[in-house]
Amino acid sequence: MAERIAGPEIERLIQLLARLPGLGPRSARRAALHLIRKREELLAPLADAMHVARERVVVCSSCGNVDTRDPCTLCADERRDATTLIVVETVGDLWALERAGAVRGRYHVLGGVLSPLDGVGPRDLNLARLVERVREGGVAEVILAVNATVDGQTTAHYIVDLLSDTPVRVTRLAHGVPVGGELDYLDEGTLAAALRQRTSL
Amino acid sequence: MAERIAGPEIERLIQLLARLPGLGPRSARRAALHLIRKREELLAPLADAMHVARERVVVCSSCGNVDTRDPCTLCADERRDATTLIVVETVGDLWALERAGAVRGRYHVLGGVLSPLDGVGPRDLNLARLVERVREGGVAEVILAVNATVDGQTTAHYIVDLLSDTPVRVTRLAHGVPVGGELDYLDEGTLAAALRQRTSL
Repeated sequence: MAERIAGPEIERLIQLLARLPGLGPRSARRAALHLIRKREELLAPLADAMHVARERVVVCSSCGNVDTRDPCTLCADERRDATTLIVVETVGDLWALERAGAVRGRYHVLGGVLSPLDGVGPRDLNLARLVERVREGGVAEVILAVNATVDGQTTAHYIVDLLSDTPVRVTRLAHGVPVGGELDYLDEGTLAAALRQRTSL
Repeated sequence: MAERIAGPEIERLIQLLARLPGLGPRSARRAALHLIRKREELLAPLADAMHVARERVVVCSSCGNVDTRDPCTLCADERRDATTLIVVETVGDLWALERAGAVRGRYHVLGGVLSPLDGVGPRDLNLARLVERVREGGVAEVILAVNATVDGQTTAHYIVDLLSDTPVRVTRLAHGVPVGGELDYLDEGTLAAALRQRTSL
């Protein structure tokens, strides 16, 4: 807004909302108005939930997940398979894998990937704890669920080296055609990988 | 999330964020993670801004705008032209007109439009105060900046009737081709209106 049309308090709310991923300046204004209209049903509980998150969310000292308890809900869940350790870049990736619900193992959040260009080295990632967890024993397989990007694959190879003197099996996610995907829209690299790793029917 | 993967506090934050316009379940999760990562820079100030908004935002008793003061910043601004009253449906429309910055008049927010189907009648809108403001004198022109929908136009006609025994001039926004718009994509009604109301070069 070029000129002040409301008190600074409302403009500050809009500016902060606009910094959320997925909201631009226009949708932040719409969100602010929506919040003001739904003061008791949404604005108040959301402010409270943020307050609680600010006070109580911690990073799990074992796996790097975020939760309101340490160890986190997943690490504390005895029913989960402790022999399988799924390594992910971010907590968002962990949540995505949990939604897929294909594995009920434990997780390990790296907090990023190796990226020389961005100045991210091994010390910036949660790698020492990963080696520690593997050496503590009980882990049979480490699944590297990192992104299929150059940095992700570099990180995967680095971890393979790190764990080479341990007896664990290290695997990575399959490459291939996304479920529901159309071949015509896929890049050649994916198609070639899907052909190479074809499975019998 | 099918199963609990984090404490209920984080899931509650995600659920509340997902109720903001423009955010779905997936972007709400992304926003929650972003907030948790930027705890001091974003989560804390946003929670505070929401708290302030909840405590202090009021509806202006004169024009129906929302602000932290009553009368609102716009009504209190003596430099604004009090002879021009711009009638809008919502505060969002008021903000949009202010961004356009074409008129420096006063506003009047109806809080909706007449809509028999949705059970919205004249008593549900901020109409009595509009007539009062016009009768108090000082207003020369009432610009009906309501949406070009059936309900918006019905409301416009209703207001014209309401103010018919006052000396004010009642106008409405022009119909025509949006600036930057392509004729090929416009509906026939808009094109016909743009032709009828063509201007000399």
